[in-house]
Amino acid sequence: MFSPSRRMAHVPQSFIREILKVTQKPEVISFAGGLPDPECFPAQAISEAASRAIGRHSARVLQYAPTEGLLELRQWIAQRYQRFGLSLGPENVLITTGSQQALDLLGKILLNPGDTVLMEHPSYLGAIQAFSLLEARFATAPLTPRGVDLAAVQRALQRGARLFYTIPNFHNPTGISADASTRQALAQLMAEYPQTLLVEDDPYGELRFHGPEIPPIFAATHGASIHLGSFSKILAPGLRVGWMAGPPEIIRAAATAKQAADLHTSTVCQAVILQLLEDGFPLPAHIQRVCAHYGERAQAMIHALRHAAPQGTRFTEPEGGMFLWLSLPPQGPTSMELFHAAMEQGVAFVPGTPFFLDGGGAHAARLNFTAASSERIEQGILRLCQCLTSLLQAKADSKRPEVS
Amino acid sequence: MFSPSRRMAHVPQSFIREILKVTQKPEVISFAGGLPDPECFPAQAISEAASRAIGRHSARVLQYAPTEGLLELRQWIAQRYQRFGLSLGPENVLITTGSQQALDLLGKILLNPGDTVLMEHPSYLGAIQAFSLLEARFATAPLTPRGVDLAAVQRALQRGARLFYTIPNFHNPTGISADASTRQALAQLMAEYPQTLLVEDDPYGELRFHGPEIPPIFAATHGASIHLGSFSKILAPGLRVGWMAGPPEIIRAAATAKQAADLHTSTVCQAVILQLLEDGFPLPAHIQRVCAHYGERAQAMIHALRHAAPQGTRFTEPEGGMFLWLSLPPQGPTSMELFHAAMEQGVAFVPGTPFFLDGGGAHAARLNFTAASSERIEQGILRLCQCLTSLLQAKADSKRPEVS
Repeated sequence: MFSPSRRMAHVPQSFIREILKVTQKPEVISFAGGLPDPECFPAQAISEAASRAIGRHSARVLQYAPTEGLLELRQWIAQRYQRFGLSLGPENVLITTGSQQALDLLGKILLNPGDTVLMEHPSYLGAIQAFSLLEARFATAPLTPRGVDLAAVQRALQRGARLFYTIPNFHNPTGISADASTRQALAQLMAEYPQTLLVEDDPYGELRFHGPEIPPIFAATHGASIHLGSFSKILAPGLRVGWMAGPPEIIRAAATAKQAADLHTSTVCQAVILQLLEDGFPLPAHIQRVCAHYGERAQAMIHALRHAAPQGTRFTEPEGGMFLWLSLPPQGPTSMELFHAAMEQGVAFVPGTPFFLDGGGAHAARLNFTAASSERIEQGILRLCQCLTSLLQAKADSKRPEVS
Repeated sequence: MFSPSRRMAHVPQSFIREILKVTQKPEVISFAGGLPDPECFPAQAISEAASRAIGRHSARVLQYAPTEGLLELRQWIAQRYQRFGLSLGPENVLITTGSQQALDLLGKILLNPGDTVLMEHPSYLGAIQAFSLLEARFATAPLTPRGVDLAAVQRALQRGARLFYTIPNFHNPTGISADASTRQALAQLMAEYPQTLLVEDDPYGELRFHGPEIPPIFAATHGASIHLGSFSKILAPGLRVGWMAGPPEIIRAAATAKQAADLHTSTVCQAVILQLLEDGFPLPAHIQRVCAHYGERAQAMIHALRHAAPQGTRFTEPEGGMFLWLSLPPQGPTSMELFHAAMEQGVAFVPGTPFFLDGGGAHAARLNFTAASSERIEQGILRLCQCLTSLLQAKADSKRPEVS
């Protein structure tokens, strides 16, 4: 007789997971998931690194490891922040089981039930789930084309929040990036509200197709906030290796929580990444290739939308990442209505509502552009736009008085 | 300005981790950790399986995977329960990031703050930490040589508990195993208290050196309780792959919590294990070799203790697992006093107190017998017993009236 704890009642159903079940048929052109293209996995290099790491250092690689992660990997990650003028050491880095785990750990060490988490609106569903499970309350600040709305952030901080969760690079689900001045302003705001911890989730930051890199807010706070990174998008998500960078006292508390959560992240997966780097795998060149590949697909989607989208449709044009955000004409069908019509034509996407905490998104949709080829993206967008045009026409017809 | 959440105040410091830091010098003979012997890792087979799995199926192995785990691995695990007369399917199995993660997930889906968890006394520190983080209260039932004290369990169940956590095989820290009649009686008791979920943590069950296998309580409850297993002790802990078996509705709720915790367990590590099994790795024969190896070390420790331990010292003689439990003469030094004296002689172990929730263990110690060679075990036990003998003598001398 299983009666779940109260916290489970707060966790939103993952509509995306349910959608993914119906969209995994190979004939469906899916813009629904958030999957990297397997062609971008450096499979040969990872396979060789795995064989070498386990073959040469099995006593260490197959053994229990420190909760904080392998020291050399933490050092390597710490040094990567030098390009932002941050001088970090391994004490600033915790290896996590994907960056998703960092959200669970930060929630655990920071949130009492009922504490407020400030989120961008819309936001990443996995963050909503992780903080909901810890019985957080939510405050929201809308997004503008230049990043989160600063006035709304300030109002929320005045009312009090323990944690401000933001995705400044190629935001999931919208594809929006915060510009440099928004990041500077956020860092200044956070300094005024030291009881709120800024958590900057940055899994897509290195997937920039064009335009100059914008340093993270973490650089503007001089390392006083939290920055989350991941090997999932630059190497492979199946490794489940991410990291949390931040002040040592938060890293230590998160390590205590991590010990109770899974003891440590797979030594094998950490060692495979280390071996890859030690063997001279050209990571920057690899990332460039991945960016070129995804950039082409993003362009294919943007071009197809420009060509085929009915009037009144708007969409973001991300400079990187994996998603763009489609805003349907407000007088037309909801994105859920469009979803059902499009599924009949073999095209899938995620309607906007699951990404909103308190309503919203009824006429919006998230489209992923990394998982399908450019040709299939063009086909899929064409079909999607035809569906939308038909639905708009039907709505218009139904409103027009009949001519007798 | 970091002020941690209330739940962090409940988490006991891991004294063991602190000890491990001082005991990792190679010259120290350490009985403190809980590490498998790296010689027992089938490194060559794992290395080859990794290379094959990634090389052949990279698009799947390096990609995101279902939260529940790879279907074939869940099927393989489900089928292993047939030997206990249980007919399970993949819907009964959740792959976890080590069996430690199962404790976090079960706590999350079952416990409201202040809910009672019934634990054996002493118990596994990682379970105390995981449930403490979820603000559980604890009730305890002492161990007898035949397993947990049934009358104490019944009294605790009458007062109400959400979860009963037990380690019936080669218990950590004591090495005690519950006999068949205790397991049957527990299953009957649990049927009378359906609001309490029995969680049977069984990482060591397959490390049986002698004596017949005793089916888990999970078999006696006909699959109505939770059974936790792990590849850490039979293959390698660095993979971080464990599992939770139980009723589908609990598996589903735990999968929801797992999605927010780390999305899924490393696809790479799951696929390596699957590849190993598909390639015909002789797991039963491998486990037999591991058991023979550890059994020899356990015997070395038991023989050395029989030979050298001063009168009044008692110790368990486990039929498997990784630990035995030493009870010092009550009139002598505490195990903490012995710890400091032994460390000066280059011998480490874990004093008993961290394993107790509300005091106790002051004259007890946990000794690991898997990490050191039989020769070093003999040396270490000899030195440890000499320290104990000296401390006993000093205590006796200090109590004797001086002869003038």
